[in-house]
Amino acid sequence: MQLPKGYRFAATYAGIRKKEALDLALMVTDTPASAAGVFTTNAVRAACVELSAANLKKSGGVCRAIIVNAGNANCSTPTQLADSKAMIGAVAKRLSIPKREVLVCSTGVIGEPLPVQKVEDALPRLSDGLFGDQFDNAAKAIMTTDTVPKTAYAEAIFGDAVIRVAGMAKGAGMIHPNMATMLGFLFTDAAVPPAHLSKILKRVVGRTFNCISVDGDTSTNDTVFLLANGASGVKITKAKRAGFERAVESVAEQLAIAIVRDGEGARKIVTLDVEGAPDDKAATRIARSIANSPLVKTALAGADLNWGRILCAAGYSGVRFDPVKVDIFVNGHQVCKNGMRADFNEPEVQATLEQSDNAVTFRVRGKGKGRARFWTCDLTEDYIRINADYRT
Amino acid sequence: MQLPKGYRFAATYAGIRKKEALDLALMVTDTPASAAGVFTTNAVRAACVELSAANLKKSGGVCRAIIVNAGNANCSTPTQLADSKAMIGAVAKRLSIPKREVLVCSTGVIGEPLPVQKVEDALPRLSDGLFGDQFDNAAKAIMTTDTVPKTAYAEAIFGDAVIRVAGMAKGAGMIHPNMATMLGFLFTDAAVPPAHLSKILKRVVGRTFNCISVDGDTSTNDTVFLLANGASGVKITKAKRAGFERAVESVAEQLAIAIVRDGEGARKIVTLDVEGAPDDKAATRIARSIANSPLVKTALAGADLNWGRILCAAGYSGVRFDPVKVDIFVNGHQVCKNGMRADFNEPEVQATLEQSDNAVTFRVRGKGKGRARFWTCDLTEDYIRINADYRT
Repeated sequence: MQLPKGYRFAATYAGIRKKEALDLALMVTDTPASAAGVFTTNAVRAACVELSAANLKKSGGVCRAIIVNAGNANCSTPTQLADSKAMIGAVAKRLSIPKREVLVCSTGVIGEPLPVQKVEDALPRLSDGLFGDQFDNAAKAIMTTDTVPKTAYAEAIFGDAVIRVAGMAKGAGMIHPNMATMLGFLFTDAAVPPAHLSKILKRVVGRTFNCISVDGDTSTNDTVFLLANGASGVKITKAKRAGFERAVESVAEQLAIAIVRDGEGARKIVTLDVEGAPDDKAATRIARSIANSPLVKTALAGADLNWGRILCAAGYSGVRFDPVKVDIFVNGHQVCKNGMRADFNEPEVQATLEQSDNAVTFRVRGKGKGRARFWTCDLTEDYIRINADYRT
Repeated sequence: MQLPKGYRFAATYAGIRKKEALDLALMVTDTPASAAGVFTTNAVRAACVELSAANLKKSGGVCRAIIVNAGNANCSTPTQLADSKAMIGAVAKRLSIPKREVLVCSTGVIGEPLPVQKVEDALPRLSDGLFGDQFDNAAKAIMTTDTVPKTAYAEAIFGDAVIRVAGMAKGAGMIHPNMATMLGFLFTDAAVPPAHLSKILKRVVGRTFNCISVDGDTSTNDTVFLLANGASGVKITKAKRAGFERAVESVAEQLAIAIVRDGEGARKIVTLDVEGAPDDKAATRIARSIANSPLVKTALAGADLNWGRILCAAGYSGVRFDPVKVDIFVNGHQVCKNGMRADFNEPEVQATLEQSDNAVTFRVRGKGKGRARFWTCDLTEDYIRINADYRT
């Protein structure tokens, strides 16, 4: 797949993480881009989140560069604000761009001071190495416990006009040694004003990155950015808005699923559809409750067909529904009908749960039109090992 | 410890569970008792929950007998309502008491029909075996995956007058093969009108059984009953209300902690205090968020001192607080000060986490007076094994 026009990327090992592996990425647009961001809702937010949000406001949603380091979250330290400011300042100076047009992300251990001098020292070689073909290396540089880099592409064709979207993300599995951070960077060469871009990103994140569950924890640093530099020359008019949003969502959805698939210790994923809730928000609550249930996730790990656990998790979501109207389908087989065991061949359905990709539908029959799609993974002994025994 | 006066208990193996072990319990008060109940908030409620709640209403909060079976939850089956009604009817007939004064609980597998005839067949020998000293056997008969029976006692002394409280409970660890059910039965010989008893039980459950977390799941059958038969001759006047409530709470708290300690795969427990939240409700939200976090629970399993995980879990509780005002203490050592790493001896604090009983305090400095106490356990590989591989 081709990258959107007008972007360059660079990655290097700055020495922030102990293991010698790419840990610093720079992402640059050749002309100022419209920019939108969605940030963690955690009450504890790292300085980089605060500063990036502030810069988007100050610049009126314009961005020229994103600097990202892995290996240290620069959170809950006395110098976090100064350190994130230093990263922004160094990039602005090196690229001769306004500080307010620089965004910054950090991911890794929290509570330990960021060696910001190492970032500053690495900047010259980083900016000298900015090329279109360094996209994959940048995707590697933002990884923490991820086992694979995560990238995705899409395009939308409007008659003769083509716009492209590319994205990279890093994991939502619990990030050693402290917490999960999810980062996503989406780039498009479509021309979209910042205000529209922001609305589109919010909707898309609501249907993708916010619909995945690895362990239900959300971090201090979670951030998703979407840049639109207009380099394709294609303006996203009202008629093109749906096609454009679909392309952005496709990239975000691919990345979100890749994160679930790479969840710590995960061997399987489930695409979970909830249908017939009073509204979409209620459907999402039910889906989140099922997707986060340790009982559902361990049952999946053991290929155990406990539809009762799914019903029960939906029951404590806080959404009222009539259990007698519930149907549940697992990999296409109806296992629960009217809230009770359906007539199905248990060994046969059980066997399907050995596969890596699974589908569960939770449907409340009735007038409700609320729907939600969620992605979750199994909870395995490896998850415990990774997260309990990291330091020992 | 002595039991409260005027109660008799019986237990037998009715053949509901496959393994030959006590699975049916009868609990009887010699004179009609005031009765209060707190039930699951799950949208899916078993027929026994619906019928018990209805009977408490019909009788105006009066109870003579409680019948409980383990091995089958009698939930999500076509005959659940008829089966629970049959259990009530059989007890009422055998003991010559009104049906509305009989309460019923079931726990075990869901979705499979209850062999109610076995309950009816066992009733004669059960009622013939009603004795004061069968309390412990009744506590055994209500167990499912519990590894030990759970009982607790307390008394309150008012000058010459003594009232006693005794209780039994069964586990909140995820109950094989389908879901967790928590049952609690509290008995006192104090004289308390039903309306007061109900308020007291609600408050006590809010501070005890609702403040434990094994895996965050709540079941279709969760029930706690409190009976007060007045056999001590001691009326709980306004002056005695606090002492009485404290005795009830003591029993409920002991049982709640016993449930956490017996959580599936658990090797350690944590008493978690949250202080300085805007109000008690907010404190409880923060505590629940920390107590349910798989990251916090696995860190505990690995004796890993990740205070950042605690801060982060508090952060996504939905309660707003200023991270810079947060202090965290682990087993008496301050590990986080002003939202940042405190100056502490890490190996020394780490070593304390090898003990079975741990204390964590999460404090927001400021004007907030909200407090909550929660109990949680570690999340171990054994939990996964028990819940994933049950059927294989």
